[in-house]
Amino acid sequence: MTATDEQALAERVVAAMLVHDELSRWLGLEVTRIAPRHATCRMAVRADMVNGFGVSHGGIVFSLADSAFAFACNTHGRVTVSVENSITYPAAVHPGDVLTAVADEEAASNKLGYYKVDVRNQHGVLVALFRGTAYKTSRPHFPDA
Amino acid sequence: MTATDEQALAERVVAAMLVHDELSRWLGLEVTRIAPRHATCRMAVRADMVNGFGVSHGGIVFSLADSAFAFACNTHGRVTVSVENSITYPAAVHPGDVLTAVADEEAASNKLGYYKVDVRNQHGVLVALFRGTAYKTSRPHFPDA
Amino acid sequence: MTATDEQALAERVVAAMLVHDELSRWLGLEVTRIAPRHATCRMAVRADMVNGFGVSHGGIVFSLADSAFAFACNTHGRVTVSVENSITYPAAVHPGDVLTAVADEEAASNKLGYYKVDVRNQHGVLVALFRGTAYKTSRPHFPDA
Amino acid sequence: MTATDEQALAERVVAAMLVHDELSRWLGLEVTRIAPRHATCRMAVRADMVNGFGVSHGGIVFSLADSAFAFACNTHGRVTVSVENSITYPAAVHPGDVLTAVADEEAASNKLGYYKVDVRNQHGVLVALFRGTAYKTSRPHFPDA
Repeated sequence: MTATDEQALAERVVAAMLVHDELSRWLGLEVTRIAPRHATCRMAVRADMVNGFGVSHGGIVFSLADSAFAFACNTHGRVTVSVENSITYPAAVHPGDVLTAVADEEAASNKLGYYKVDVRNQHGVLVALFRGTAYKTSRPHFPDA
Repeated sequence: MTATDEQALAERVVAAMLVHDELSRWLGLEVTRIAPRHATCRMAVRADMVNGFGVSHGGIVFSLADSAFAFACNTHGRVTVSVENSITYPAAVHPGDVLTAVADEEAASNKLGYYKVDVRNQHGVLVALFRGTAYKTSRPHFPDA
Repeated sequence: MTATDEQALAERVVAAMLVHDELSRWLGLEVTRIAPRHATCRMAVRADMVNGFGVSHGGIVFSLADSAFAFACNTHGRVTVSVENSITYPAAVHPGDVLTAVADEEAASNKLGYYKVDVRNQHGVLVALFRGTAYKTSRPHFPDA
Repeated sequence: MTATDEQALAERVVAAMLVHDELSRWLGLEVTRIAPRHATCRMAVRADMVNGFGVSHGGIVFSLADSAFAFACNTHGRVTVSVENSITYPAAVHPGDVLTAVADEEAASNKLGYYKVDVRNQHGVLVALFRGTAYKTSRPHFPDA
């Protein structure tokens, strides 16, 4: 595939995934950049997304990062699923914060892909470090691609 | 503290956390058992909780497990925050599934607590293995407790 | 396979692995129990295993746990490799301590196995919580088995 | 502290740690660069470092990465200990390979530091992705510093 074909496939995959992704819709997640093995996503944290301490629930930041990871690791066109994720929280997130998640592949073998997702707030402060290991099935997203 | 006092404190802490926990409310999360260093929570997966493949978004199972972890690790009465979490997904989760998350402390030092959360579906199948490391601040939930 | 056959295969696999496992030999690791999807291993921490603080190097406890994990996850007879590991350290380990690592499968799919390894010292204190995700190749350890 | 003072403190801390670090000595680990919140370390994998499959034991790569992490996260001069580590293995390591581990801080709060360690072989291939969370005690390495 040419770079142009790779980019077109990446965009086609993510567009198809977004049709079904109800949770990302509820989050208000916006995909701002797609490239092969990359995704950037953005969302605003709302008052209905807090935990028992009144700050953003860990599950919100995780969901944003996990969506970015899922988009990035499927861009090559094979159906790819998450094996394992980890997350740390260097800084707290509050309602009103606007978060940007940047997902990139760090390494890959034939079957596995290793991704990192950095999540920053509107001030550029790193609020979460997310890692994801993905298993690439042999099934294509589009039989014709 | 007596065992009775510890149980009363655990319940008081979780009741206070639930007042503010808007995300757990949206999830439909129900706390079915609280004990010192333990929480069991249950929720039903809805059609608006799916990802781009039409199965439960990883963020949903994570959020359920993370809530159970947060309740369990705060039961001793000091404000306790998450340091790191990891999750794996041994089986897929579908809309309509009813999930039960069981959170227990595995080990603890003065400052840190190590928790595991097992999440099973209505058939008893393990669908997620979640781990959490928690940092215990010196701040009490209730100055009088 | 009968339970007897499964046990015999498990022991045969681990015996074959031990022939080549030079690091476990240097550690002084002893395999004290093997069963399908299980391994128990023991070792004594020596003065030449410390880190810059004079306590056991994290790599020593990790290596013990990783060996126990590798033995346990190969017992079913297919060549199985590690995908990801995590470890926490609830208590310090000192030269002279005798450590026992108990590895068990928590869940499995066709391709992946999820293991936990608890490491305790001679007083029964939990000194490490190790998790491992393993990928089962289709290659048998013994073509005749 | 000036940048010069920070660099001098970093070097002094690591020099003091290396005096006691018997495992790093056995590994043949060489510290090739120290800077505030950074360490680069190198070692050659020997035939006595293999696992049951004849490739480098996971504990060897982990130990190298863990040493680099420990040096990097102690450079600020407060005694700092590991809370949690995770590692993945994008490519196999063989005896004879020369590994370089590069440890850098990704984020930090007052009490915690978040580090990544990339390990590459002599061909520049990424063979391990290691993450470490560190807890900074209030105890200085040198009361006069």
